[in-house]
Amino acid sequence: MKKQQNVLIIGAGLCGSLLALRLGQRGYNVSVYEMRPDLRKTKISAGRSINLAFSDRGSKAIQLVGMGDQVEKLCIPMNGRMLHDEKGDTIMSKYSGREHEYINSIPRGELNALLLTEAEKHENVNIHFNKKCLSVDFEKTTVLFEDYQTKKEFVEDADVIIATDGAGSALRKSYYLANKFLFSFSQEYLTHGYKELSILPAENGGYKTYKNALHIWPRGNFMLIALPNLDGSFTVTLFLSYDEGDYNFNNLTTPEKVTEFFQKEFPDTLELMPNLVDDFFENPTAPLGTVKCSPWHYKGNTLLMGDSAHAIVPFYGQGMNASFEDVVEFDQVLDQNLDSWEAIFETYETNRKKDTDAIADLAIDNFYEMKGHVANPIFQDKRKIEMALEKEFPQDYSSKYSLVTFNEDIGYREAMLRGRAQDKAILNMLSDGLISSSDDLNILLKKITDATNAILEDDKIAGLI
Amino acid sequence: MKKQQNVLIIGAGLCGSLLALRLGQRGYNVSVYEMRPDLRKTKISAGRSINLAFSDRGSKAIQLVGMGDQVEKLCIPMNGRMLHDEKGDTIMSKYSGREHEYINSIPRGELNALLLTEAEKHENVNIHFNKKCLSVDFEKTTVLFEDYQTKKEFVEDADVIIATDGAGSALRKSYYLANKFLFSFSQEYLTHGYKELSILPAENGGYKTYKNALHIWPRGNFMLIALPNLDGSFTVTLFLSYDEGDYNFNNLTTPEKVTEFFQKEFPDTLELMPNLVDDFFENPTAPLGTVKCSPWHYKGNTLLMGDSAHAIVPFYGQGMNASFEDVVEFDQVLDQNLDSWEAIFETYETNRKKDTDAIADLAIDNFYEMKGHVANPIFQDKRKIEMALEKEFPQDYSSKYSLVTFNEDIGYREAMLRGRAQDKAILNMLSDGLISSSDDLNILLKKITDATNAILEDDKIAGLI
Repeated sequence: MKKQQNVLIIGAGLCGSLLALRLGQRGYNVSVYEMRPDLRKTKISAGRSINLAFSDRGSKAIQLVGMGDQVEKLCIPMNGRMLHDEKGDTIMSKYSGREHEYINSIPRGELNALLLTEAEKHENVNIHFNKKCLSVDFEKTTVLFEDYQTKKEFVEDADVIIATDGAGSALRKSYYLANKFLFSFSQEYLTHGYKELSILPAENGGYKTYKNALHIWPRGNFMLIALPNLDGSFTVTLFLSYDEGDYNFNNLTTPEKVTEFFQKEFPDTLELMPNLVDDFFENPTAPLGTVKCSPWHYKGNTLLMGDSAHAIVPFYGQGMNASFEDVVEFDQVLDQNLDSWEAIFETYETNRKKDTDAIADLAIDNFYEMKGHVANPIFQDKRKIEMALEKEFPQDYSSKYSLVTFNEDIGYREAMLRGRAQDKAILNMLSDGLISSSDDLNILLKKITDATNAILEDDKIAGLI
Repeated sequence: MKKQQNVLIIGAGLCGSLLALRLGQRGYNVSVYEMRPDLRKTKISAGRSINLAFSDRGSKAIQLVGMGDQVEKLCIPMNGRMLHDEKGDTIMSKYSGREHEYINSIPRGELNALLLTEAEKHENVNIHFNKKCLSVDFEKTTVLFEDYQTKKEFVEDADVIIATDGAGSALRKSYYLANKFLFSFSQEYLTHGYKELSILPAENGGYKTYKNALHIWPRGNFMLIALPNLDGSFTVTLFLSYDEGDYNFNNLTTPEKVTEFFQKEFPDTLELMPNLVDDFFENPTAPLGTVKCSPWHYKGNTLLMGDSAHAIVPFYGQGMNASFEDVVEFDQVLDQNLDSWEAIFETYETNRKKDTDAIADLAIDNFYEMKGHVANPIFQDKRKIEMALEKEFPQDYSSKYSLVTFNEDIGYREAMLRGRAQDKAILNMLSDGLISSSDDLNILLKKITDATNAILEDDKIAGLI
């Protein structure tokens, strides 16, 4: 590919700004158009969630663009899940039996700002704010924008257009509405929505509860989680059904009822959140949806990346990591020096889609696991065994969570298939009394490995994988 | 529910006309609006496929409205699949080991005509043709129509609106575009499309090939099928990739290439289809898609039924049967005398959606099985064992195909779970040499039943079903 090609990127969020930086480093002429104002100059929300989980797949992308040190300063390590029961008692469940494996809480806005600044250091990268994409003509490779300041519409063209404009992507909408090719598309909502709340910093500026954990209050049909911020606060998220159960978003309509709900279900949070009722009625309730589609590209003209191609629910903490990994995968395809953008886009989608489909499904699995199973005895036994195996055999065993989160050199699909088979093997052997968490670890490793391989082999013979 | 309620049905296809008849029998005031002319008076296509597979679930619905004898006259029994190999040799693979279990080929147009005539015998049922639904206001319970003859638009209201307007449903589109509630929706296309061809009757008016079978030419990546018609012809369908493989819809652009393709892959069809090239270039190529969505209803105002709620690919021969079964299920909910349309719609969707999701997935499974696996030795061994078990133990064993097709008293989802587990059990035991098709049938039944139950139990413990 000629390096002086003009690439137009729609959206300067996390994926778009990382992509702009990487393509800038590779020498392309990159123009980025973002509908929001520059978040480095205006105090605005950078998107829906204030902080995000950042782990190895995201980190690999950040290393690729040489920003590891800068980004590390924004990270708060979370070594495990701190589970809070109804009485307010807590138990810490580590993410891995390997000490060096943990995830991080990172502020979306600051990370986005760093990426924008780094991208703009390249004179071949230009970022334009307050320019909203109205539609994409994917036959002509042009975009219609509206300038939010002048209120004028204008058209830009480019050699290729890459849309990193998120779950509500204008390009994806153009694909769907144009009806010019067979476009497979799905949007699936959970019955639950979410609302952000907050634990403010202590008066001394410290953290009111344990800093280095992802806090979870699992309650079966709903849950509360909290991630730490650099300023001593925590961003808290309530995941709750819109209309099922005794308490739901549709019937929590008065301060009394909200307080009653938290008093009954999350009593230890009332002291941490004196601001609960204000937050609850000020902040919006938002839906949780999964978007999949195919194809991601139209010929060699346009391509969807990040959430625009594969929006997922947040329960695996992989949304940003998956979008960053898109950039790594795309970069690897660029390294192959294919002879057309169409070949590049086609190869990228073929390599990548199986993995983003997998993380979408894994994220939904984890919704059920987090709100329910973490409190289930057989799942706790499984977790205990897996922690011990990871500690004793760091090279030979990884749980599904570790495969997904800490093994950036295997794809999400492989992590899903192996991880699900392992889970099935362990749960069934525990249930049948064939293993117990007090067994010798060498024997456990062998039994679990053998049973996992047998499950994978059986599924293969039956044509299921 | 008050019987004098006004029900407006959009679409007088197979599902809509059966529903109109049943609701007419129950005493509702039913108005049906259909965009096409009356197919009893005009020679038009009643829809895309000329003939359809009609089996026990559809038959149960036809019995419900008392039309068993009339409909039986339209049926041509197909006792099994007649497989044609590359040399033109054939082998008959029966659908069931039980003699009385077979499927039928039935003409879409004639069946639809019968249903319309029967529905119109009820003075409380009125059917209006040439009225195209443009949009549905599901808040006001009104429909905007265009009269194709006068070109005028008009609005109709009703107590409830039921859309049976097929895979391209206007009501479903209104749900999607209105953005007034969370609407989960998917459309998934296969990489393959289809084209209809025909084997004309013999000069003496008879059938040029065996009448009582569904003919299949399975070729791994593509296939041809043929179903008999009452006039001695067969409707033939080619399922082929749009753009993959040596021959595909995109590159079959000349008579020479089409003939070469059929000569090479389906040599025995050339004699049967002297009209091949004309048919090929006259008939359209159409896509194969699956549509799922939820919710099907909006409050107690509007409801999707049939293909508008769940369009499936044709490979299980269950499209019409599933839509007819919708009417049976809906009728059973009406029998419960619930106190509002909202409760009726909610109950109906809760009962039914799991089953229509299952048949959608089963139909895609069968695409792979029909074009590939039917020619695979291990699948042939499985089929042989299952035929023998069904014959020997008619009360105790049913293959997945029989569970889906001939067991109308269990839902599609139960048929799918048990059927898939059985398939997995048999394929794995065959592959591991634990059973063979020459084993004693009593032992085979016990081994297969035990292994199937173990698979279901393992999946349950792992939370997979």
